[in-house]
Amino acid sequence: MAVNDAERDAMSRALALATNGPRGLNPQVGAVILSPTGEVLAEGWHRGSGTPHAEVDALAQLTAEQTRGATAVVTLEPCNHTGRTGPCAQALIDAGVSRVVYAVDDPGDHSSGGADRLRAAGVDVDAGEQTAAAGILISDWLEVQRLGRPHVTVKWAQSLDGRAAASDGTSQWITGPEARADVHRRRAASDAIVVGTGTVLADDPALTARDGDALYAEQPVPVVIGSRPTPADAALHAHPKAPLFFASHDLASVLEELRTRGIQRVFVEGGPTLASAFIAAGLADTVLAYVAPVLLGGSRLALTDIGVDTIADARRLTVDEWMPLGDDLLVIAHPTAPEGA
Amino acid sequence: MAVNDAERDAMSRALALATNGPRGLNPQVGAVILSPTGEVLAEGWHRGSGTPHAEVDALAQLTAEQTRGATAVVTLEPCNHTGRTGPCAQALIDAGVSRVVYAVDDPGDHSSGGADRLRAAGVDVDAGEQTAAAGILISDWLEVQRLGRPHVTVKWAQSLDGRAAASDGTSQWITGPEARADVHRRRAASDAIVVGTGTVLADDPALTARDGDALYAEQPVPVVIGSRPTPADAALHAHPKAPLFFASHDLASVLEELRTRGIQRVFVEGGPTLASAFIAAGLADTVLAYVAPVLLGGSRLALTDIGVDTIADARRLTVDEWMPLGDDLLVIAHPTAPEGA
Repeated sequence: MAVNDAERDAMSRALALATNGPRGLNPQVGAVILSPTGEVLAEGWHRGSGTPHAEVDALAQLTAEQTRGATAVVTLEPCNHTGRTGPCAQALIDAGVSRVVYAVDDPGDHSSGGADRLRAAGVDVDAGEQTAAAGILISDWLEVQRLGRPHVTVKWAQSLDGRAAASDGTSQWITGPEARADVHRRRAASDAIVVGTGTVLADDPALTARDGDALYAEQPVPVVIGSRPTPADAALHAHPKAPLFFASHDLASVLEELRTRGIQRVFVEGGPTLASAFIAAGLADTVLAYVAPVLLGGSRLALTDIGVDTIADARRLTVDEWMPLGDDLLVIAHPTAPEGA
Repeated sequence: MAVNDAERDAMSRALALATNGPRGLNPQVGAVILSPTGEVLAEGWHRGSGTPHAEVDALAQLTAEQTRGATAVVTLEPCNHTGRTGPCAQALIDAGVSRVVYAVDDPGDHSSGGADRLRAAGVDVDAGEQTAAAGILISDWLEVQRLGRPHVTVKWAQSLDGRAAASDGTSQWITGPEARADVHRRRAASDAIVVGTGTVLADDPALTARDGDALYAEQPVPVVIGSRPTPADAALHAHPKAPLFFASHDLASVLEELRTRGIQRVFVEGGPTLASAFIAAGLADTVLAYVAPVLLGGSRLALTDIGVDTIADARRLTVDEWMPLGDDLLVIAHPTAPEGA
């Protein structure tokens, strides 16, 4: 049967409820339970890993009598997976719900199949209501499911001729204020900001996302990779979020650890060795190169070795945008051929 | 007195006549002699260094009776300089010309002042008619006068990260067909194409300007700089213009020699050592960087050392255009601060 007006309204409400939950390891999901006549019986949302899923959160507020024959409107396909909570599809069946309307299919290997399970139990299931809006809400989480790891943006600033600094190491400022402001906006939209110990020791960066002198409300978790110790008085210790330190150079394992901490978007900021390592490992999903109209020459390269020996192995990029920013140019690109997972 | 219709028409005609002459050491100039009633008495143009200037070319077709009281319409200020020919200003005075209309002031240290000399002799002089069109016609020559040497464009192709080739030296093709076609169009618009012996030995380039497989009608003179000998069977020996070879690494003296040969626009194509040397010497008036959306890493840099040790000495560029060309980007820029002469 077609989605009716009450269900459509309930989905809009469920999408709003979803945003009450945290961004993290699990997706933000909202749910509304409707009576057979379309009255709202209960609302729920997912409060994060280990807590009830949205539809169970809503069902828990109702008696068995209320849920029997009710309609559950959920922003994500009810799961079919027993993890820290039981499968939601079974919970809906057990509650006697007769119809489920949902927006986005669950992409998980272990958790998908909820719709089939519901249908097999005789529940009427309608998928695809407001898919676009629901997909945008959890796009980063969906990307993590697709990649099997957080999305990685590798960013660097360079002179036109590919240098990160002059021969004596000076580099402030290669790019202009518009480019630097753009970097801070993108930091704020990331869950983690990753640098190597070399950058910490050389530049003592704050690793905060700033709008002028003010901190943005959203801050990325500072992450430092490398075996050299970070000084006790390093600026990043004043970051509003506690820094994470990884002595490992196994970038895949670092990303896996970040994923389990609910980090969906990683912003790799430097320096050249770390950026090159992510690219060499095929772990750069987005490349952001801030190119300043300046020539430096010399040996301080923005990228070092990325494992390319011959032109046939060049890392081809597809440019999403050549974006002028003040006097500079931001090149937004992604690998042309899929790399890695 | 104001420029009249007959004089205006005569200037248009003089501009057309000018293009009959060769591009080279001297500017292209045309002249028309009008009777006092505005009839065309004679036309002339400059046929190249050592031949009569345009106004003298036209006067020579007339009797003293015809030239007395006539008006000379010339695209460039009559010269005041005795070189391989006598000063045109004096020739006009001697011919009894009573009025001179010209378009562009002569910028030369030695040749300017013709208008003053004419006025001092009682000739009516009107400057500035169709200056823009005349200036465009001889813009490259005017630029040579301003710089004291040919205009130099330094061109290179690079990966986004500033490499000219992969680690094993392979580089075909970093940029795409649109970028390569653009290079050939710009070669055809140049008087000389300059490479180092390293490029000749490594790539054996034809150094022709080609539209697909066909040669453009205009071809730059191939110029090779360096002390290593060019193989007798090198492709550039088949160039429609005879190559010039310079063992000297004194780029200023090379440019001076090219200037005396009438070369106004020089296109420096490579490789990295030569491009870097022109930039280091402050002899790059225009920079053309064809940037391919590809990452290479490694040590084959598009520019090597350009004499910059610290960021304050960076060679700042002003970008005239970030121009997408197919998948690539052409950066057209010039030095922000005037360098050199």
